[in-house]
Amino acid sequence: MNAQSLRIGIAGLNGRVGRLLAEEVPAGDAILAGGTTRDGQKVAGIECPVYADIAELARHCDVVIDFTHADTVVPHATALTETGTAWVLGTTGLSPAQQQAVDAAAQKIAVVQAANFSPGVTLVTRLARQMAAVLPGSEYDAEILEMHHRQKVDAPSGTALAMGRAVAAGRGVRLEDHIESGRDGHTGPRADGAIGFAALRGGQIVGEHSVIFTSGHEQISLTHRSFDRRVYATGAVRAARWLSGRAPGLYDMEDVLGLDRPA
Amino acid sequence: MNAQSLRIGIAGLNGRVGRLLAEEVPAGDAILAGGTTRDGQKVAGIECPVYADIAELARHCDVVIDFTHADTVVPHATALTETGTAWVLGTTGLSPAQQQAVDAAAQKIAVVQAANFSPGVTLVTRLARQMAAVLPGSEYDAEILEMHHRQKVDAPSGTALAMGRAVAAGRGVRLEDHIESGRDGHTGPRADGAIGFAALRGGQIVGEHSVIFTSGHEQISLTHRSFDRRVYATGAVRAARWLSGRAPGLYDMEDVLGLDRPA
Amino acid sequence: MNAQSLRIGIAGLNGRVGRLLAEEVPAGDAILAGGTTRDGQKVAGIECPVYADIAELARHCDVVIDFTHADTVVPHATALTETGTAWVLGTTGLSPAQQQAVDAAAQKIAVVQAANFSPGVTLVTRLARQMAAVLPGSEYDAEILEMHHRQKVDAPSGTALAMGRAVAAGRGVRLEDHIESGRDGHTGPRADGAIGFAALRGGQIVGEHSVIFTSGHEQISLTHRSFDRRVYATGAVRAARWLSGRAPGLYDMEDVLGLDRPA
Amino acid sequence: MNAQSLRIGIAGLNGRVGRLLAEEVPAGDAILAGGTTRDGQKVAGIECPVYADIAELARHCDVVIDFTHADTVVPHATALTETGTAWVLGTTGLSPAQQQAVDAAAQKIAVVQAANFSPGVTLVTRLARQMAAVLPGSEYDAEILEMHHRQKVDAPSGTALAMGRAVAAGRGVRLEDHIESGRDGHTGPRADGAIGFAALRGGQIVGEHSVIFTSGHEQISLTHRSFDRRVYATGAVRAARWLSGRAPGLYDMEDVLGLDRPA
Repeated sequence: MNAQSLRIGIAGLNGRVGRLLAEEVPAGDAILAGGTTRDGQKVAGIECPVYADIAELARHCDVVIDFTHADTVVPHATALTETGTAWVLGTTGLSPAQQQAVDAAAQKIAVVQAANFSPGVTLVTRLARQMAAVLPGSEYDAEILEMHHRQKVDAPSGTALAMGRAVAAGRGVRLEDHIESGRDGHTGPRADGAIGFAALRGGQIVGEHSVIFTSGHEQISLTHRSFDRRVYATGAVRAARWLSGRAPGLYDMEDVLGLDRPA
Repeated sequence: MNAQSLRIGIAGLNGRVGRLLAEEVPAGDAILAGGTTRDGQKVAGIECPVYADIAELARHCDVVIDFTHADTVVPHATALTETGTAWVLGTTGLSPAQQQAVDAAAQKIAVVQAANFSPGVTLVTRLARQMAAVLPGSEYDAEILEMHHRQKVDAPSGTALAMGRAVAAGRGVRLEDHIESGRDGHTGPRADGAIGFAALRGGQIVGEHSVIFTSGHEQISLTHRSFDRRVYATGAVRAARWLSGRAPGLYDMEDVLGLDRPA
Repeated sequence: MNAQSLRIGIAGLNGRVGRLLAEEVPAGDAILAGGTTRDGQKVAGIECPVYADIAELARHCDVVIDFTHADTVVPHATALTETGTAWVLGTTGLSPAQQQAVDAAAQKIAVVQAANFSPGVTLVTRLARQMAAVLPGSEYDAEILEMHHRQKVDAPSGTALAMGRAVAAGRGVRLEDHIESGRDGHTGPRADGAIGFAALRGGQIVGEHSVIFTSGHEQISLTHRSFDRRVYATGAVRAARWLSGRAPGLYDMEDVLGLDRPA
Repeated sequence: MNAQSLRIGIAGLNGRVGRLLAEEVPAGDAILAGGTTRDGQKVAGIECPVYADIAELARHCDVVIDFTHADTVVPHATALTETGTAWVLGTTGLSPAQQQAVDAAAQKIAVVQAANFSPGVTLVTRLARQMAAVLPGSEYDAEILEMHHRQKVDAPSGTALAMGRAVAAGRGVRLEDHIESGRDGHTGPRADGAIGFAALRGGQIVGEHSVIFTSGHEQISLTHRSFDRRVYATGAVRAARWLSGRAPGLYDMEDVLGLDRPA
């Protein structure tokens, strides 16, 4: 092993995301230093040390990427803090107490926490806020369109709602005061300043989102298409590399992409 | 006046569509032979004879284009039948009795009747039926997306529903048994064979419609965009020219475009 | 083996398309009855009898799907004709003599021959011809846009050119007399009746094609997106099933999809 | 006249843009205070004082909007500086000496100078630079697609090239070192870091531009559509209002929109 190598570990090596991560990690100066599985057993097709214990993994890594379960957040926070190992955390559905454990850990180690690690989605959400700040709601109508695979059971998608919140934030309003979702039947005219949502379903579409601003004279639209779920793994690895040598703190994907904080 | 000219008359010369028609008619061998207004007064900016009486107009025309009111359908049918004048009829909202008057007139004169005279919409609706016949609903999910101006008070648009009925017809089913419109909240997975609808609203969009078929492997979509309402006038004039010398009968825009009847 | 089963064989079982076909064949009443490889060796992960000799395979199949090499066309024609086995032929780049062998075989056995087995591409190409027949080139400008992966070395794509030929056929003209491809610099205004082409390149896009008709008043566009190459295998299997019990003759994917022949 | 009103004047009142401006100016607290024509004659349908002399107009206005000719730039600079009247300057094709006159004037009066006053184009161009800074060219392929009316004689459009320069600036490279425009024939694979351009032509499309970033896993695209030329007038009036009470200086549409300067 090269002394310069960034040693990346993967919690939950045998999960769906874990496997994608294992393929994405080894590139440039980064190596796959190990992973955890519940029973510590090797995973077929993945060549790296496997541990049952996160603390053991932490001792062999500079960064751990973690897309596991909310229940593991507290023990993972403890273990990583102890060894000073950086943490890329994609686990969602955290309770307030679990989130507190993350916040506390971020006082001592560098943490990137995000609900969506796609660089494109992060960027589009950020740009949607900027666009909304510049294109007044009195003149430009904002609509968000999403399309997903036929199995999806809810609408709008979480990412569409995040984009809607970004538009609302850019306008200095709250999404819940302006949402118009699922138009059908007699709807009346569009409300001034409304943020509209529409959902298409079909095939095996991984995810497509558009934020569309339309005035009487022009239309500006921003569209994101995910071709495969690998994009989340790619983004998480990008976050892991970015964390290398970073000071303790709680970061998100906007930081990783180097997007300036809005004033 | 050239003996060869096609003499086109416009009922309701001072209506919104009437004015557009007056601009579109004079082209090639067609001339604007006259129009009607309620009071028989001239219309500013339009150079042609004006009558208060449809029978008078009919005597001076080969074809009358008529986008007026359901109430005028019965007297217009009588007048045009008497002079053997062809009829392009875009009036909508006819009662059964009014429609019977049209059907009866079509025994004696050539009539093109349509709800939408846009060649593009006619074509797209027809192609949607063909596509649905070839792309089985078990494999290809059909969705219809439409966008209109912010003032529109209902969803989906009438044209979107017509496209949905075309998809259903292509599959040999009824739209009302398979419609999924306005997805919002917990929707459950997409039903097999569903025909989905989504509506966007914004700016002064005249009308955009897409019919989208998505399988796990490919997507085929057909989109129509109207840039201005003039397209309806253009289509009606195309219908008037097509009627020239045509045998009595009730025709529609598919006939005007020369689309083969499905078997 | 069920007496009713359709026995499908695959020539070139270990090629890239061969493997995809092996996964797609077993469905409904169809079974994978066998395949050929150059040396007759089994292919890892595919459970079926393997032969080195096409004649041997033909004896065990109702239909053979063949995406191999132009050089094999003549011996395959001989072998399949002998056993009366139907033939789905996707091999391209045939010499006139090789094509003659196919034509001769089609006197005795049922053959589907196509350059592209995607149902969507077949349909879009056909619809493009219909659209061009209805939307006059004096009024509607036709453009073809395609996007492919960054490795692609030529433009426009073969499929884009096929769509352009379909537009030209719909208008009763020759593509080579009206093509405008790769506009750059001082181009002058668009020629009347031109058929324009533009090419985008990026990422790993499998293939996207749009045929766009634009008048001063409206735009109709037809878009095909391939999500993965599996669509060719799916289409070939659909062709194989369609051939079952079919009379001898040379068919193409339009026949398989049940598209009417234009008059 | 209200003492509070913002008095806006229009140089070249009888030009195509001048007429649109005259319709857009009177709104909120702004009034159309006058205009110039070459001969000082009134313009049919526009109610306001008309002067032959820019100095005369300047005396009656707080801001002058100027979409005239490069030849008038020097005298306009002199006149407006004398009266301390702000200047919205949309005239293009300035010689170095003419530009120097603008720069000198901006020492004394507030000037907004821009080649394109559309808020949407300004925003999209700016966002394209940001996107390019975040999406590395080694991973994301950038392509720019534009569509314009059939009369357009060159490709790519000036706005498309401006967007390409923005992408190049975001990556810290020069557009001319990476441009790939008008692909046709044997092109070879896409060059690493290339910025590609493709041009569609048809109908009366005012202008559509897309900047598309595609990796192997995702695609982010930003699209601007102009529905009518009025958008330039709207933007110029927005600039005029923004100038009210502004300190002397040379500003552009990014300033008017309140976009932060990049570091």
